Amino acid sequence: MPKVYLVGAGPGDPELLTVKAARLLQNADAVVYDRLVGDGIMDLVPQGAARIYVGKEAGYHHMAQDEINDLLYRTARPGRTVVRLKGGDPFIFGRGSEEALYLRTRGVQVEVVPGITAASGCCSAIGVPLTHRGYATGFRIITGHCGGDLPLDFDWRCLADPKTTLVVYMGAANLPEIAHQLMANGLPGSTPAAAIASGTLPEQKVRRGTLADLPKRLETAALPSPVLIVIGKVVALMDELAPDELFEFALEHAGHA
Amino acid sequence: MPKVYLVGAGPGDPELLTVKAARLLQNADAVVYDRLVGDGIMDLVPQGAARIYVGKEAGYHHMAQDEINDLLYRTARPGRTVVRLKGGDPFIFGRGSEEALYLRTRGVQVEVVPGITAASGCCSAIGVPLTHRGYATGFRIITGHCGGDLPLDFDWRCLADPKTTLVVYMGAANLPEIAHQLMANGLPGSTPAAAIASGTLPEQKVRRGTLADLPKRLETAALPSPVLIVIGKVVALMDELAPDELFEFALEHAGHA
Repeated sequence: MPKVYLVGAGPGDPELLTVKAARLLQNADAVVYDRLVGDGIMDLVPQGAARIYVGKEAGYHHMAQDEINDLLYRTARPGRTVVRLKGGDPFIFGRGSEEALYLRTRGVQVEVVPGITAASGCCSAIGVPLTHRGYATGFRIITGHCGGDLPLDFDWRCLADPKTTLVVYMGAANLPEIAHQLMANGLPGSTPAAAIASGTLPEQKVRRGTLADLPKRLETAALPSPVLIVIGKVVALMDELAPDELFEFALEHAGHA
Repeated sequence: MPKVYLVGAGPGDPELLTVKAARLLQNADAVVYDRLVGDGIMDLVPQGAARIYVGKEAGYHHMAQDEINDLLYRTARPGRTVVRLKGGDPFIFGRGSEEALYLRTRGVQVEVVPGITAASGCCSAIGVPLTHRGYATGFRIITGHCGGDLPLDFDWRCLADPKTTLVVYMGAANLPEIAHQLMANGLPGSTPAAAIASGTLPEQKVRRGTLADLPKRLETAALPSPVLIVIGKVVALMDELAPDELFEFALEHAGHA
């Protein structure tokens, strides 16, 4: 019976896979995976299983989405158990739902296994709660990189809410525009903000600043893509909640004021 | 060395624990856990470890937050490894950051291990992607149950955004008010909406409707608390993406039109 498990690989640390994801990887006939899936995770895949890389690099699409859909279908169809492994959570900005629709329509069973999304994984790793009494009553997740080269299309006044933590996935390229618009719509430039790359991995890098100065910090000390940006009062809690080693190493080099 | 791991237990299914959470539970000296942590998860805790229940029932606090903070401190202080296990993710509406601050201030090491939050776990389980091209460019998570009996305090016009999936934690009690305000602020009553209880567990229950009629559906067929509400065009994708067994059982009984 052909079946595709659409599995979230989480933020990077192999230990942040779910128990179910680890079990499925160990029993897959084939694993179709993205650039954002770490090597440590692919080490769980048994020797005999096929490993198919369909990663997309920014600005260069290794394989178009239509081709990925078709590849998944053709791989599963002879009755194979396929794990489609995606960074983070498959139902958050991963086009996982498009793959699921394509396969379902063609009679392939699909089961979705959620993963720790980057907002949760990276913020835990640097000591930033997404909500905190008196700081944020909720949070909001957007992507800073719209399809193709489309301009950002947000209701900026609503995004500029001091009581809501704002997390921007793939946020580096458009951060100057995002910060400018948020400030123009009333969010104070002094609002704490942080940028994280390779969150939860040994090579994790963090830049800490404010809404006003984070774009400049990233300009002078760029981070490898993708970069997660978190904006809101909760970021100030890093000062008390970040792991010690983060303050001793990453932030020192980041020029944390 | 006293250490408290603040660990997310995920949405309920023990297989949706992270590998790290499972490892820590198997090696804990003591586990301090909430009502929302399922029995299947506590089964991982070894015989010799202390199990301390500090769950809160709606309307009746088994133990006040101050007492929980102090209990964690006293349990860890003699040099024990304590797992503080919280439903979902410890940094999302769990007061985990308050516990971490309390412990850090008193010299106890704290490490945060993220968990699958209910929005991600429950939506995957019922076939609702949180984002989908042309349906939702992002999502937003709020709680429908403010501290004490405070009235809901949201910028309703901003919440009523047809391009953003809205997820409401602990949303059942205030759903009539939330739906009314969203519609009064321009979100069409026809917007698809769903309510989920015990998501990812065998006893999972789902009600599917629209923003206009979901409050009535929950009134005539209540769900056990806590209930997660998801509102947005993405909910319509359930028709194609929900697991077969969900449609055969849960939705049939829910009176899905």
